Amino acid sequence: MAEQTPALLVVSAHAGDFVWRAGGAIAAAAMRGEKATVVCVSYGERGESASQWLAGKSLDEIKDVRREEATAAAEALGAEIEFLDMGDYPLVESQEAVAKLIDVYRRVQPTVVLTHPLDDPYNGDHPAAARMALQARVLAQAIGVANSDGTFPSKEDIIGAPPVFFFEPHQPEQCGFKPNVLLDITDAFPRKQAAMECLPAQKHMWKYYTDLAERRGVQVKRNAGPNLGLPHETMGEAYERYYPQVTGELR
Amino acid sequence: MAEQTPALLVVSAHAGDFVWRAGGAIAAAAMRGEKATVVCVSYGERGESASQWLAGKSLDEIKDVRREEATAAAEALGAEIEFLDMGDYPLVESQEAVAKLIDVYRRVQPTVVLTHPLDDPYNGDHPAAARMALQARVLAQAIGVANSDGTFPSKEDIIGAPPVFFFEPHQPEQCGFKPNVLLDITDAFPRKQAAMECLPAQKHMWKYYTDLAERRGVQVKRNAGPNLGLPHETMGEAYERYYPQVTGELR
Amino acid sequence: MAEQTPALLVVSAHAGDFVWRAGGAIAAAAMRGEKATVVCVSYGERGESASQWLAGKSLDEIKDVRREEATAAAEALGAEIEFLDMGDYPLVESQEAVAKLIDVYRRVQPTVVLTHPLDDPYNGDHPAAARMALQARVLAQAIGVANSDGTFPSKEDIIGAPPVFFFEPHQPEQCGFKPNVLLDITDAFPRKQAAMECLPAQKHMWKYYTDLAERRGVQVKRNAGPNLGLPHETMGEAYERYYPQVTGELR
Amino acid sequence: MAEQTPALLVVSAHAGDFVWRAGGAIAAAAMRGEKATVVCVSYGERGESASQWLAGKSLDEIKDVRREEATAAAEALGAEIEFLDMGDYPLVESQEAVAKLIDVYRRVQPTVVLTHPLDDPYNGDHPAAARMALQARVLAQAIGVANSDGTFPSKEDIIGAPPVFFFEPHQPEQCGFKPNVLLDITDAFPRKQAAMECLPAQKHMWKYYTDLAERRGVQVKRNAGPNLGLPHETMGEAYERYYPQVTGELR
Amino acid sequence: MAEQTPALLVVSAHAGDFVWRAGGAIAAAAMRGEKATVVCVSYGERGESASQWLAGKSLDEIKDVRREEATAAAEALGAEIEFLDMGDYPLVESQEAVAKLIDVYRRVQPTVVLTHPLDDPYNGDHPAAARMALQARVLAQAIGVANSDGTFPSKEDIIGAPPVFFFEPHQPEQCGFKPNVLLDITDAFPRKQAAMECLPAQKHMWKYYTDLAERRGVQVKRNAGPNLGLPHETMGEAYERYYPQVTGELR
Amino acid sequence: MAEQTPALLVVSAHAGDFVWRAGGAIAAAAMRGEKATVVCVSYGERGESASQWLAGKSLDEIKDVRREEATAAAEALGAEIEFLDMGDYPLVESQEAVAKLIDVYRRVQPTVVLTHPLDDPYNGDHPAAARMALQARVLAQAIGVANSDGTFPSKEDIIGAPPVFFFEPHQPEQCGFKPNVLLDITDAFPRKQAAMECLPAQKHMWKYYTDLAERRGVQVKRNAGPNLGLPHETMGEAYERYYPQVTGELR
Repeated sequence: MAEQTPALLVVSAHAGDFVWRAGGAIAAAAMRGEKATVVCVSYGERGESASQWLAGKSLDEIKDVRREEATAAAEALGAEIEFLDMGDYPLVESQEAVAKLIDVYRRVQPTVVLTHPLDDPYNGDHPAAARMALQARVLAQAIGVANSDGTFPSKEDIIGAPPVFFFEPHQPEQCGFKPNVLLDITDAFPRKQAAMECLPAQKHMWKYYTDLAERRGVQVKRNAGPNLGLPHETMGEAYERYYPQVTGELR
Repeated sequence: MAEQTPALLVVSAHAGDFVWRAGGAIAAAAMRGEKATVVCVSYGERGESASQWLAGKSLDEIKDVRREEATAAAEALGAEIEFLDMGDYPLVESQEAVAKLIDVYRRVQPTVVLTHPLDDPYNGDHPAAARMALQARVLAQAIGVANSDGTFPSKEDIIGAPPVFFFEPHQPEQCGFKPNVLLDITDAFPRKQAAMECLPAQKHMWKYYTDLAERRGVQVKRNAGPNLGLPHETMGEAYERYYPQVTGELR
Repeated sequence: MAEQTPALLVVSAHAGDFVWRAGGAIAAAAMRGEKATVVCVSYGERGESASQWLAGKSLDEIKDVRREEATAAAEALGAEIEFLDMGDYPLVESQEAVAKLIDVYRRVQPTVVLTHPLDDPYNGDHPAAARMALQARVLAQAIGVANSDGTFPSKEDIIGAPPVFFFEPHQPEQCGFKPNVLLDITDAFPRKQAAMECLPAQKHMWKYYTDLAERRGVQVKRNAGPNLGLPHETMGEAYERYYPQVTGELR
Repeated sequence: MAEQTPALLVVSAHAGDFVWRAGGAIAAAAMRGEKATVVCVSYGERGESASQWLAGKSLDEIKDVRREEATAAAEALGAEIEFLDMGDYPLVESQEAVAKLIDVYRRVQPTVVLTHPLDDPYNGDHPAAARMALQARVLAQAIGVANSDGTFPSKEDIIGAPPVFFFEPHQPEQCGFKPNVLLDITDAFPRKQAAMECLPAQKHMWKYYTDLAERRGVQVKRNAGPNLGLPHETMGEAYERYYPQVTGELR
Repeated sequence: MAEQTPALLVVSAHAGDFVWRAGGAIAAAAMRGEKATVVCVSYGERGESASQWLAGKSLDEIKDVRREEATAAAEALGAEIEFLDMGDYPLVESQEAVAKLIDVYRRVQPTVVLTHPLDDPYNGDHPAAARMALQARVLAQAIGVANSDGTFPSKEDIIGAPPVFFFEPHQPEQCGFKPNVLLDITDAFPRKQAAMECLPAQKHMWKYYTDLAERRGVQVKRNAGPNLGLPHETMGEAYERYYPQVTGELR
Repeated sequence: MAEQTPALLVVSAHAGDFVWRAGGAIAAAAMRGEKATVVCVSYGERGESASQWLAGKSLDEIKDVRREEATAAAEALGAEIEFLDMGDYPLVESQEAVAKLIDVYRRVQPTVVLTHPLDDPYNGDHPAAARMALQARVLAQAIGVANSDGTFPSKEDIIGAPPVFFFEPHQPEQCGFKPNVLLDITDAFPRKQAAMECLPAQKHMWKYYTDLAERRGVQVKRNAGPNLGLPHETMGEAYERYYPQVTGELR
C-alpha cells in the first residue's frame, strides 16, 4: 500500500471536549512526531461556562477565556487548534459549518479522525458536531463538491476514507457507547494531565478523568491478557471505531 | 510489552467450515511463518454430507471422507488440524468437549482465536461450537481449572486473553453478523482456492466463496480509501471482533 | 415452483397457549381446508393450573383436565392435536423431546410453522419449546439424522424449509416481540371464540383476548390503508416472521 | 377487500441507484403489466460522477448525461421516470422536495413503495431521500395537507397506506440492513442486465450486481426450501419491509 | 435532599394526544394537588381532523374546535393548557418553537416531564415534538442560554434535571416502545374517561383506550405480584423512562 | 395495597461478587432495618482465587478461606449469607441448584432481588447464576411446583413477583449493561468499605470500587439535577431493572 503521512484530526463540539476525552490519543500522536489538528466547532460559551456567566462575564469575554484555555491545552498536547465559532447550546447543524469542515479535511488530509459519538441524551451539541464531522468527511472525498470559496478541488485535494473513532462521552452507557478499541495512553498521560491543568475552571474534572484513565487502563490490561506484562499503572482511553477496520493481519 | 509467539487457533464446528470462512486468514498466518491450528469439533457427518448419505455411505465412511478432505485442505493452507469427533446435528454442548478444548488452548497458546458467530438460525451447531470455544478460552486462563487428565496447570500452561474473531456465516445479516474487521487476503487467496478444491463434493461453493472474496475485497478497498493504491483485484474476508481491540495507536 | 400441500404445524409449550395466541390462524387454515396439527410439548400442569392445585387435584387429574380441554379447543378450531407430555415448570430442553418433534415434522411435512418467540422473561417454558421447535425443524431437513426409532429417513421423509412465525406473547414489548405480520382473522374469529370457551378455568382471558383481537384488527386496518375497505369490526392476530419471506412479488 | 390497481413507486436518491438495487423488482412489476414509476430526487451529479468531473465536464453536462442514462435504464426496465433535481452531496432535506413528492404520491397512487434504508454511513444522501419518501407518504394520506399548488386534495386524491420496502445498500451490514424479504427475480434479470448496461460509466458494477443477484438467489433457494424445485440459476434481490405485512394467510 | 414543589409538564404534538396517552398520569397528579401543565405544540389541524376537512370546515374553524375540545379535556383532568400553534403535518422543528418551550420550562419548573417517544413510523410530528421537548429541557438548564425575550435567566430561573417519561404511542412495538414503568391509574381513570368524552369526534377511541387501560392494568397486577392485593379492575398506563431513575432505595 | 415486609435477596455467582457490586444496596437495606440475605451459588474457588492456587492451597482450604471472608463481609454489611457450593469455572446450570434456590425464595419471601446481568463475555458463571436466579423466581411463584423435599407449597409459601435488579458487571459496556437506576449509597458507603476490607486478597479492588462509587455518584447528582442539593461526595451504585417498575406515581 502507498503510505500516507500520518495526520490526526479531532472534531470537538466545544473548546474543552478534546482534552478530557481524547487528550491521550492526541498526545500519543504528537509524541510519535505526527501532526495533530483540533477543530472546535464552538467555544462552549453558553452551555459549559456556568461559573463565568454567574461571575457576570460577557459573551465575548467568555469566548476569549475559552479560546485561550483550549489553545494552551492543545499546545500542552502538541496539537494545532482552530475555532469555527459556530455557536453552542444549541450547536445548529448548517451547510456553512459543514463547508468549513470540508476545507479543513482537504487541508489536513487526515489519516485518522476523532469525534463525539452519535447519541448523547445529555448534550445535543455533541451529536450535532459528530454528524457534521461525518458528513464533511464523505463530501470531502468527492471531486464534484466545491471548496467553500467556490473553487473545485484537484485530485490531490480530495481525501481518502480515514477511519473514524468516537471518543468517550460523559455517561457512556446512556449514550449507547460500546468501546471496541482500548488505547494504551500510559506514556502520553503526563501530557494529558498537563493539558487538563490548562482548564482551571473545571478542576474537579482533573481527578475524575484521571480515575477514568486508570479504569480504562485496567481494561486495557484485562483485554490484552496478563502475559503481556503491562505495568500496574497502565492508563487508557476508550474509543468506538465507526467503520470496519481494514487490515492485512488479524491480531 | 513482552512478545508472545504468534499462534492462530481456529475452532470449527464441522470439518469444512474453516476453509470457506477463514481460509484466507489461516493461509496468511502460515505465509507469515506463524503456526496455525484448526480444531474441528465434529466432522459434519450428519448435517453436511447429504450427497454421501444419498449414495448409501455408512457413518464411518462419511467421517473418513470428511477427515481426509479437511486434512488435505488444512495442509493446502499450511495449518495443522485436529478432530474432536463430538458428533453433529445436533452438536451438543458438553463439559467433555469443553475440557478437550481447554487442553488445546493450553497446548497451542494461541495469540488469536477464530470461530463462528454466536447466532445462526440456519445451523445450531455453529453457535454451539462458538459457545464452547469461548467458554474454554476463559477457563483455560484459570490456574484453578484442571487439565482434562486431572493435573493442574503450571503458571506457564495457562493462557492469556487472546482476541477472538468471528468468521462470516453463510447468511450474514440473518445471523446478526456485522463485520468490524475487513481482512485483505489478496496474497493468500491462491492457497485458499487450493484448499477449497480439496472439497470436491461442494464444488458449487468454490465460485460462491470466490465471489464473496471479491465482494469483501471491494469493501476492503472502499473502507481503506482510494489513496492506498490497493490493486483492483483485492480479495477479502470479513470478521467480527468480539472483545475490544487493545492497541497503542489508533489507525 | 412445485406446489406443496399446505399443512400447518403449531408447537405449543402448554396445552392452552395455541388457543389464545394462534387460534385465529389455525381456524383460518382449517377453514381453507388445510390440515392443521397442534403439538403440546407439555400440559402446563404445574405452571398454569393454579386453581386446580388449590382445589386439591392430583397431578394426573390435572393433566387429564388439560388434555380434554385442549382437545376440545383444537376440535373447535378444526385441528388435530398431540401431546408430548415432557413436563413443565420447568420445561427442560432434551434431545428426547427434540427427537419426537423431528418425527412430527417428518410426518406432518408442514408448509408453515407457528411457535412461541425466543424471549419471555415471565415464562421460560415458552422459549424452551420454541428453541426445540426450531432445532427440530433444522434437523428434520437432514437425511443423515435418524428418526427416533433409529431408522434413517428417505428422501421423501425429510422436510423443506417451512417459514416460521412466532405468535404473540402475553406481554409483547417485554419479550422483544415486534410484529411484522398482521393477520386478518375476522372470518375465523367465531371459531377462535368457540375454542376459547373450551377453556372455562381461564374465563377472564376470553374478554382479554377478544379485546386483543380488536386491537390487532385496528392495526390490520391501519397498516392495510383505508382504501381497502376493511370492515369496522376487523379482528387480527400479530406474528413475527423469523426467516426472510421468499416471494415472487413485493406487496 | 376492494382491489387497487397495482402501481409501483421507487424513490431513488440519485439517478443510478434504482437500477442496481431494485431493477429486478421494477422489471418484474412491468412484466406483470403493472405501472412502475421511478423518481430520482437528484441526478447524483456531484457525488457519483467522479470520472466526468475528472474529464472536465460542466455541472449541466453531467446532469444531462445522467438524466439520459437513467432514462434509458428506466425504459429498459419498463418504467417511467421523473427527476426532481434537488441537488446532491449533500442532498438537503427540504419541505419543497417533500411537497413535490406528495404530489407524486397522489398522482401515482402507489400500492407499493421502494426506497433506500434509513442508515448509510457511507452516503448521507440515501437516508435523506428515504426520510423524505417516508414523510411524504404519510402526509399524502391526509386530506388536510394541501397539494404543492395550494389546492386541497379530494377524497380520491389522498392515498392509502402502501407497504414500503427498503432496497439493498452497497454495504448492507454497515447500514443495519437485515433483509426480511427475498425476491425471486430470475425471470426479470435479463431486463435488469439490459438496464445496467445503460450505465456504461459504472461498467465494473455490472459484474458486481450480477454476482450479488446470484448470491441473493442462493438465499432465495435456501429459505424457500429445496422441495420447491427452484432452478439452479435463481437470481434474487433483498428487501427490508418497513411496516408490518398485512395478510389473510400466513405463508 | 431539598424538596422541589411537584409540577408536571406534558409536551404534546397535537391537541388530543395528551388525553389518550397520558390522561391518567395527569389526572393522578392533579388529584394529589400538584400542578399539571399541558403544552400542545400544534392543534393537529391538518393531520388529525379528517372528518372536519371532509365537512368543509376552514383551517381556522378546525383550530378553534380543537382548541376548545382540548381545553375542556385539560379541565376535566385538572390541568392547565397552552397552545404554541406551530403547525402540523408536518410539525417542523424550529429554534423558534424550542425557544418558546425553554420559556415554558423555566416558568413551570417541572419536576416531571411527559412527551412522545422518539420513533414513530406512522406520524413524524410525534418524534419532532419529543426532540424539541428534550432539547429545550437541556437548554433551559443553562444560565448562558437567554430567554426568548433576550433577557438572561437568574439562577432561580434555570431548571434542574427533571425525569422524562415517554407515553405510549398508538402502535407501541412498531415505535420501539418498551414500557419500563407501569402506572396504576385506577383512581384517576374516571377523570380520564371524562376527558376522553370531551373529544366527541374520536368517539371510537373511547373504547379503544379504555380497553388499553384494562390491558395495561393486567400488566400492573402481573408485574406487581399477586400478593399486593390489587383490585380486579386495576387500570394502567405504560411509560418509558428516558433517563436513569435516581433513588435512595431499590424497590 | 397490602404491605409486604421488605426483604432483600441477593444471588451471587461467587463468594465475593455481592460485596463489590451490591454492597451499598445491601448495607442501605440493613440500615433501614430490613432483612437482607445473600446466596452464593459457588465459592469462586477455581476462577477467582489465583493467588491461593499459586500459594499451593488445596481446594478445600480455598473454599474455607472464601467462605470465611464472605461471611465477614456479609456481617459488615448487616446481611445473612448462605452458600450453595455448586462449583465454579464453570458454574453449570442444574435443576438441583434451581431447586435449592426455589426453597430460598419461598423461605425469604423477597420483595427485591439482586443478581448479575445476563451477558458477560468475560465470565460465564455470572450469567449462569442469573439465569438460575430468574428461573427459580418464576417457579417459586407456582403452587404446582414442589419444594426440594417433595412437599408442595401452601398458598402462603409461594412468592409474589418481586422486582429484579441486575448489579454492575466489571466491564459494563461489554456486557450490554445499561443502568436505568442510580442508587445513592452515600450513607451506606462506610459499611461497604468495611465489607471490602474483609477481602484482603483483592486489595487492589478497594480503590477501584471506591472510584467507581464516586463515578456513579457523579451520575446520581447529574441525573437528579443540581436543585436537589446532593452533597459533593455523593457515592452511587448502578443497577438495571429487569421488569417494568410498577408505581402509583411518576417521578
